[in-house]
Amino acid sequence: MPKIDISTAPRGSGTRYPAPFDAPCKARAWSKLGDAAGLTQFGVNLVRLAPFVWSSQRHWHSHEDEFIYVLTGELVLVTDEGEQIMGPGDCAGFKAGDRNGHCFQNRSSEDATLLVVGSRHGEDHGEYPDIDLVFLRDRYQGTGGYRHKDVKPY
Amino acid sequence: MPKIDISTAPRGSGTRYPAPFDAPCKARAWSKLGDAAGLTQFGVNLVRLAPFVWSSQRHWHSHEDEFIYVLTGELVLVTDEGEQIMGPGDCAGFKAGDRNGHCFQNRSSEDATLLVVGSRHGEDHGEYPDIDLVFLRDRYQGTGGYRHKDVKPY
Repeated sequence: MPKIDISTAPRGSGTRYPAPFDAPCKARAWSKLGDAAGLTQFGVNLVRLAPFVWSSQRHWHSHEDEFIYVLTGELVLVTDEGEQIMGPGDCAGFKAGDRNGHCFQNRSSEDATLLVVGSRHGEDHGEYPDIDLVFLRDRYQGTGGYRHKDVKPY
Repeated sequence: MPKIDISTAPRGSGTRYPAPFDAPCKARAWSKLGDAAGLTQFGVNLVRLAPFVWSSQRHWHSHEDEFIYVLTGELVLVTDEGEQIMGPGDCAGFKAGDRNGHCFQNRSSEDATLLVVGSRHGEDHGEYPDIDLVFLRDRYQGTGGYRHKDVKPY
């Protein structure tokens, strides 16, 4: 039957960011809802952020549109324009190639959950405006990775 | 600021299905959240289905992955396998090219809301297994349309 059994969907957690940038994201966890249904054109992850956990470092994507919808809890969306509080039913979208980085930070004492949708594009790469970090293309082939902004390896 | 103002997002409602297939879908209504953020690689619609309204006729897509997440209310998901009740937090995905048609029917006395995500592919076309109806490619260019299964116009 086509309803997705979230309890058995593939899961992920943590981060491969080099230290010390991994610290706020180590406890992030997600269920891969799109993968559970065999979807390949975009990913849909149900992300759970415990108190003081971030969705990511602030970043932007060169080739992938991204959309998030907050289901529960309270998050702070950080972009070039500043900070916005996001609660259940709030949403935001980030167009491919827009160099205005974004991340969601749980600064509350309760868990927050959000749906994150992102297209999948083999050439996608991007940058973290606040820190000395970029991510290279071909991460879906396992050959991307995190580098200094001068592209030297960590 | 990047948070989407749902109250001012572009909206849609109704259906262009030929009669009598339009009847259960005439009162469907949606806010175009992805469009509001300028996203083009996939659409994200917040769909509201009043009592006895359907999301669509049962259909499948040739080239587009689709994902739905139920936010409020109760819906009946109809596929080749039969019927499943979907409530808040339930979700399902439909892979491009899988000819197992689907639709969501609100048979309850309360409104239901769902997020619908679909990739956008110019060659997408598809079929309605239960009725004499297909939809042709190029609907994003405005030249697609609904036909009989022998491709004669309505």
